[in-house]
Amino acid sequence: MQDTQTLRPHEVAVDAPLPADATLAFIGHIETPWPRRADCPRQGRIDGPDCTIVVAPPWDAALAGIEAFESLEILYWLHLSRRDLVLQNPSHGDSARGTFSLRSPIRPNPIGLSRVRLIGRGGNRLTVRGLECVSGTPLIDIKPDRCQFTPFAGA
Amino acid sequence: MQDTQTLRPHEVAVDAPLPADATLAFIGHIETPWPRRADCPRQGRIDGPDCTIVVAPPWDAALAGIEAFESLEILYWLHLSRRDLVLQNPSHGDSARGTFSLRSPIRPNPIGLSRVRLIGRGGNRLTVRGLECVSGTPLIDIKPDRCQFTPFAGA
Repeated sequence: MQDTQTLRPHEVAVDAPLPADATLAFIGHIETPWPRRADCPRQGRIDGPDCTIVVAPPWDAALAGIEAFESLEILYWLHLSRRDLVLQNPSHGDSARGTFSLRSPIRPNPIGLSRVRLIGRGGNRLTVRGLECVSGTPLIDIKPDRCQFTPFAGA
Repeated sequence: MQDTQTLRPHEVAVDAPLPADATLAFIGHIETPWPRRADCPRQGRIDGPDCTIVVAPPWDAALAGIEAFESLEILYWLHLSRRDLVLQNPSHGDSARGTFSLRSPIRPNPIGLSRVRLIGRGGNRLTVRGLECVSGTPLIDIKPDRCQFTPFAGA
């Protein structure tokens, strides 16, 4: 956790320990042009720079058919984020907003979610545009964009 | 895990144990009209039935300001799903597709993601439309829909 422990005015942290109700397995990582969190843009842009999603074995086999989609939803673990704020003051203003009315990386379960454009695939590596996370961010999931997806599923 | 352990033709499971790289805290639960997984629709519909998102304390305080958004992204834990398939055959066809080219609930990290319309709020309960999950599904996160959100964040 690299956040400062200093709260901004009007921010509120909870001090109850977070339960560990389920576990996540990192299935790869994301390479971006931004080595530090301070370098990251606030939101990804579909016309932003190329980034690379690297899917580790055995999960690379689950990429079969991914080329059919122009647009993907990427879930990743915001490993540098504190998790204890319920009210945040990201704009340094004179009030704070609830965590669930922000897309801040600080959340009880710090999962980042971006819609990206799939540029290409080489083996277990996807080139995409639209991310904003720090390089080295752990990968959690890849889904076809819901707007493009006709469901086969329900299994 | 309530999935049958029987694979359909062309499906492939991995048998390596999943590492526990990070932990999730359930922050509430979701109440829907569907008590069993077999009852759930394959995709949520914005004109579907009302569902209720219940945010447990202390995280209910993080709902401050949520009423400003008509549309939210909801992340939840698909607690009934197996996690070990890399190729799936949801349509019972003569081939299988990679897990990451499906929105099936079966994934290495079974996180469900739906875009919902916010109908109303009463305290720690949100009435929404657009979900498809079984009643009792654990809640992981609530984010303002990215299409409606002007970033304040980056903190």
